[in-house]
Amino acid sequence: MTEAPTPRSAVLADKLIAEGLIPADEPAEGGREVPVSPEAAEASGVVDVEAAVHAIADRSRHAARRMARANRAWKDRGLRAIGAALLEGSRQILAANAKDVSAGRANGTSAAMLDRLTLTDARIKALAAALENLATLPDPVGNVMRGQTLPNGLRLRQINVPMGVVAAIYEARPNVTVDIAGLGLKSGNAVILRGGTAAAATNAALVTILRDALESVGLPADAVQTVDQYGREGANALMRARGRVDVLIPRGGRELIQSVVANASVPVIETGEGNVHIFLDASANEDMAVEILLNSKTQRPSVCNTVETLLVHSGSTVLPAVAAALRAAGVTLHTDERIRKALPASIETVPATKEDWATEYMDLDLAVAMVDSLDEAVRHIRAWSTGHTEAILTNDLANAERFIAEVDSAAVIVNASTRFTDGGELGLGAEVGISTQKLHARGPMGLTELTTTKWIVQGEGQIRA
Amino acid sequence: MTEAPTPRSAVLADKLIAEGLIPADEPAEGGREVPVSPEAAEASGVVDVEAAVHAIADRSRHAARRMARANRAWKDRGLRAIGAALLEGSRQILAANAKDVSAGRANGTSAAMLDRLTLTDARIKALAAALENLATLPDPVGNVMRGQTLPNGLRLRQINVPMGVVAAIYEARPNVTVDIAGLGLKSGNAVILRGGTAAAATNAALVTILRDALESVGLPADAVQTVDQYGREGANALMRARGRVDVLIPRGGRELIQSVVANASVPVIETGEGNVHIFLDASANEDMAVEILLNSKTQRPSVCNTVETLLVHSGSTVLPAVAAALRAAGVTLHTDERIRKALPASIETVPATKEDWATEYMDLDLAVAMVDSLDEAVRHIRAWSTGHTEAILTNDLANAERFIAEVDSAAVIVNASTRFTDGGELGLGAEVGISTQKLHARGPMGLTELTTTKWIVQGEGQIRA
Repeated sequence: MTEAPTPRSAVLADKLIAEGLIPADEPAEGGREVPVSPEAAEASGVVDVEAAVHAIADRSRHAARRMARANRAWKDRGLRAIGAALLEGSRQILAANAKDVSAGRANGTSAAMLDRLTLTDARIKALAAALENLATLPDPVGNVMRGQTLPNGLRLRQINVPMGVVAAIYEARPNVTVDIAGLGLKSGNAVILRGGTAAAATNAALVTILRDALESVGLPADAVQTVDQYGREGANALMRARGRVDVLIPRGGRELIQSVVANASVPVIETGEGNVHIFLDASANEDMAVEILLNSKTQRPSVCNTVETLLVHSGSTVLPAVAAALRAAGVTLHTDERIRKALPASIETVPATKEDWATEYMDLDLAVAMVDSLDEAVRHIRAWSTGHTEAILTNDLANAERFIAEVDSAAVIVNASTRFTDGGELGLGAEVGISTQKLHARGPMGLTELTTTKWIVQGEGQIRA
Repeated sequence: MTEAPTPRSAVLADKLIAEGLIPADEPAEGGREVPVSPEAAEASGVVDVEAAVHAIADRSRHAARRMARANRAWKDRGLRAIGAALLEGSRQILAANAKDVSAGRANGTSAAMLDRLTLTDARIKALAAALENLATLPDPVGNVMRGQTLPNGLRLRQINVPMGVVAAIYEARPNVTVDIAGLGLKSGNAVILRGGTAAAATNAALVTILRDALESVGLPADAVQTVDQYGREGANALMRARGRVDVLIPRGGRELIQSVVANASVPVIETGEGNVHIFLDASANEDMAVEILLNSKTQRPSVCNTVETLLVHSGSTVLPAVAAALRAAGVTLHTDERIRKALPASIETVPATKEDWATEYMDLDLAVAMVDSLDEAVRHIRAWSTGHTEAILTNDLANAERFIAEVDSAAVIVNASTRFTDGGELGLGAEVGISTQKLHARGPMGLTELTTTKWIVQGEGQIRA
């Protein structure tokens, strides 16, 4: 890196190098040609956004090489330094956030979006706690996935190594800025962020704090960079920076993800869309069905692992109890004609259309359809599911096995809440997102999913016959 | 599937169902709206290529569901049936191939390309033998990658499942048609093929034989389909069939791969480009250096794991011996000024330009440059490598470790031939290709890399707190 290190970080880096904790820095390969702060970018009137984003990506590549060689102790020190810096800098963060929130309010932003945008002391403390939790997790880097000694004596290992440059495009949720930076750091990557414009002031304050904290422990500040200063054009350049960005993760709603998928030429991991189904088989126990439906629908309606459609076997006798419990919990039931007829008049419903089968409500709404068989349920799921999570409630072993085998989703659940499709719940420690694609990662992504692999082959002169 | 099964396949399928070897077929979900054979397509004058390719992909999805439920014994029976059918149908295949070859000769196709296009009895026998080898390999489907019982009693498994619909776009090499079909079948996928136009007659003959062989053992013929009949437009529609194609594998030269990467909206795995480097460190043993260089360059110059650039440490004393051996083997040495000066006048060289550092010769040519340190070698590799394979020849432990850590390629080799970067050599059994990207698969891809994963969560009423 060409910027002058602060005395503090230089001294610490020298100390860590002397202790053998970190390798000596390598010389910079590229100059810093473009300003990095939004203010400086504005002031300079830079016009070639693509060149500017490429320069950012090249600095990110350089930082990534240093991150890849940082051992766990050092990376965890970085995570804790960031946590401490967020708490120390909370006044500064909250001041920037207040600007974004009041601008959002003036623009008529919805209450739900304002809530996601808003930071508080408690939320900053939660971010610091999440970083502390990350620091306690094992390092995915250097893990030996498989290995053997071949008949010719070659020693073979396939190990996890960092991806390199990880980019993220997300909505106006400042917590994602810290979240992705922490996950990237722990997995030995450098990250390039593009947050929603509505959170620009907050993100700028956060990125400054994150970069200073990294430098304070001798890690490269450029391991966290943003292209927010280049607006939508910057986001486009990031999506098209093939060869410079190793993976791009869009985090947000359907529209954001589809736009990234359609426009990106860099490798993308799709996350999050969840049109989740539960199939209530004829043999399902009533109490279990009521508990699981209530939990899957009402525990946190706005997230992707919440159930959106209930498919009821026509032989089930527990539908009225389930429907009554959901109504009592405030859930609007969008039902087809047969479900309507199977319910007592006292249970209020609204008629469902085809659109309901496709809708991820993310609210206290549930589509309900009747089916005559497991086959019909599977066909409905194939037609409408986003491949995130589907569950069956049953006491029929053959049906459970068939559902597991025939439903092609990232997670298939038998007799439990759909809310368990979550990195934390499934024991991955941290969650990068929930992949709904089949390449690289499927379902909850942990730290290992931010790594790739490298084959290492060691011999003493072996040649191929 | 809507086509009437032949009596033979229907009888066998019934028998296999009765034996419990295979599940009963499910009803078709979509009709067969477009003709599938090139002749029929031509005759019908179909114009909506996108709709036709989507219909093919939808039939492929349907076939993929049946393939996913076929157990190993059944799939291996299919592989052996294909092998036998290729041998039985060799006259028919060779006749179609003769048409392609003579058309190619008339068009002035190069001798090397004609060689790749040409099938012989021996080559057909080799294809059948490769299928027999595939049949002996373990089934990647159903493998439990990880699993545990969570504190709340949920039983968790992450298992390998087929990708679903695998597409391949490749050049006029008919062996790839059989190769991809076999790999797809063994891994429980359905494949959609797009081969080079110059091999159209051969591929049409092969696909017909493959489909008949699948049907003869009760597997869906639509597990192997081609879009060759729709030409370039068909290839484009295949690349853009997002949501219908789970993964697209381009196999061929740089131009083909780059065109697919630039145009595809479906997930792609890049394969094959190999600008491979060997770094000859000062401490490398002379005999070993000579043997490894000869093997890495001359054993099979036209493939991707052949070395293309040799970087020589200025302190090495073995350069003259290495250069003399390579010259004696017919290798043209493209050298920089310092290498030229370090060699006796008796060793012929040609001057290298920057372009040589970027060139994947795939022939008996080698770029040779002198460097003063491991750092300089690593910088050269970072600047010019395609990330396929790099090797170091050294007796210095610290240098070996640094090379392993700092070179960011799919395979890093110490003191062995670069020709070992190969699925067969590294014990993967079969090779789908060599991925040079970081997402999903990196380096030699075996059958497992044609699968994705599924989380299976089993409980007895667990809900999230």
